[in-house]
Amino acid sequence: MTKITLPTLADIEAASKRLQTHAVLTPLIENPPLNEKAGGRILLKAESLQRTGSFKFRGAYNFLSQIEPAARINGVVAYSSGNHAQGVAAAAQIFDIPATIVMPSDAPLMKVENTRGYGAEVVLYDRVNESREEIAAEISQLTGATLVPPYDHPWTIAGQGTVGLETVDQCEIIGVVPDAVLVCCGGGGLTAGIATALAARSPNTKVYTVEPDGFDDTRRSLEADTRVANDKSSVSICDALLTPMPGELTFAVMQQHKLTGLTVSDTEVCHAVAYAWRHLKLVVEPGGAVTLAAILSGKIDCRGKTIAATLSGGNVDAAVFRDCIRSS
Amino acid sequence: MTKITLPTLADIEAASKRLQTHAVLTPLIENPPLNEKAGGRILLKAESLQRTGSFKFRGAYNFLSQIEPAARINGVVAYSSGNHAQGVAAAAQIFDIPATIVMPSDAPLMKVENTRGYGAEVVLYDRVNESREEIAAEISQLTGATLVPPYDHPWTIAGQGTVGLETVDQCEIIGVVPDAVLVCCGGGGLTAGIATALAARSPNTKVYTVEPDGFDDTRRSLEADTRVANDKSSVSICDALLTPMPGELTFAVMQQHKLTGLTVSDTEVCHAVAYAWRHLKLVVEPGGAVTLAAILSGKIDCRGKTIAATLSGGNVDAAVFRDCIRSS
Repeated sequence: MTKITLPTLADIEAASKRLQTHAVLTPLIENPPLNEKAGGRILLKAESLQRTGSFKFRGAYNFLSQIEPAARINGVVAYSSGNHAQGVAAAAQIFDIPATIVMPSDAPLMKVENTRGYGAEVVLYDRVNESREEIAAEISQLTGATLVPPYDHPWTIAGQGTVGLETVDQCEIIGVVPDAVLVCCGGGGLTAGIATALAARSPNTKVYTVEPDGFDDTRRSLEADTRVANDKSSVSICDALLTPMPGELTFAVMQQHKLTGLTVSDTEVCHAVAYAWRHLKLVVEPGGAVTLAAILSGKIDCRGKTIAATLSGGNVDAAVFRDCIRSS
Repeated sequence: MTKITLPTLADIEAASKRLQTHAVLTPLIENPPLNEKAGGRILLKAESLQRTGSFKFRGAYNFLSQIEPAARINGVVAYSSGNHAQGVAAAAQIFDIPATIVMPSDAPLMKVENTRGYGAEVVLYDRVNESREEIAAEISQLTGATLVPPYDHPWTIAGQGTVGLETVDQCEIIGVVPDAVLVCCGGGGLTAGIATALAARSPNTKVYTVEPDGFDDTRRSLEADTRVANDKSSVSICDALLTPMPGELTFAVMQQHKLTGLTVSDTEVCHAVAYAWRHLKLVVEPGGAVTLAAILSGKIDCRGKTIAATLSGGNVDAAVFRDCIRSS
């Protein structure tokens, strides 16, 4: 393993080259009625349309492409509630590397099915009584498989940072510099990657994290200027964002670029999922809709501004989706 | 009114200029697993992401922009089951022209609500016992409102043709020439527009229409080399495509370019709506999913080919959508 350092723009550009023929250049979507509602210009980076239905493919592919050939034969192992699982499984399938994914037994069914569909072996665990880190470490020790971290690694962060690079490129094509970028934030891999890309390529754009209530570890950590954890009893429909606390590396990047944290309620998220369905015609999962929820609920003032927002994923079970669109 | 002639590439280019700051440049979406499933390269022109949730805004805006200022004050009138209704209402709102839309009382609720939401007056009629053409003609006579035809007019066709122009431009950017383009076909406005654009800009690309079973008037008309009508007792979930027969103008364009017609069943359409939800993360209405249905059900052989397909709209009621994703 290489020495751990913070990723740079050059790392993100290198990741972008690696991903070129494998990842989807996801569109930056604009919707005039949403602009009118927000009173500004809203540009949605729809990573729900990414391969595997979330941005996680980017970081996973970038990581796997840098595993030495001799180590590939022993496979990879990862733990994830679902989007990282699918990203690693799909990337492993491309590289023809065996993959084992440790997933909670209450993960969304679609995420478990899709992960198996990409050819990975899924090991389910009990979220309350077992440690996914320990299970993954055991598998790694037994098989020699390389652990693919979900967010706290420079290769992962650099891969996710390509979302930021593309956003800046796409904004340049339409001749705008966004005043702010909103990022759906769990462990912070996407946030750290985008913050790195933006600091280098669009330094006047402010980066905000958006988290669900009860999982606002990033917001509180940024305010306290040190990493703090979430209450273990917290619950949220945003299954993709239920991380215990910011990563060491990801938080260092967020501190460096002086990010600000926003939060939204599950009700606001559910409304945003329904809004995306009804008005934008996009399928967005709860965790991927927190940024849109922040815009729609006025958590950020968009009036007269250009705001880019990631929609980080679209892997949502039919029952949850039906509930969201029924309640809207 | 100007003399009726077939629209040209120049008309489509002029429409494109008019639409530039008002319509969404919809993405051409590629999904690696769909490519693998089809055995070729599938490029989806997602008009579901267009303003008003369908391509119809393009033709409506292009038409309204050419109504003489003196006539605008008397307003516009249109009849439509929903997508043309929303397109005309939204365009009229931009031009600040009063709009009256004649809609069947069994039109999807979302389409009626959205049309009212754009500020139009909606007049409901009984599809079995009343004639929408007569009601619209009466309104036009009483008020002096200009009738905005749903498909059989060169201004409308030229507006819809901008979908074809963009598809060719977007294919050029990624360095491909599509072997074929599949178009969701009702009255044929989108088809005629795309066929005109393709004939001029990408003459080696073959254009196929796709219709639901029971509403395959275009396929049968192309085979008979003359316009034939559908059986009045036909039913389909594709509410956007339930036109009685091809338009005079639109069919003349389709004949000229020697199009071929394909058909799909409602079951195949429902499966495509669910596939788009589950795998592509796109909300597509039944009528907008017929092209995807043709690909998924093997009605066209995509192996080794590059196929562009329009997803023409995404305005679907929650109940129908839930039924589709539940049955998948």
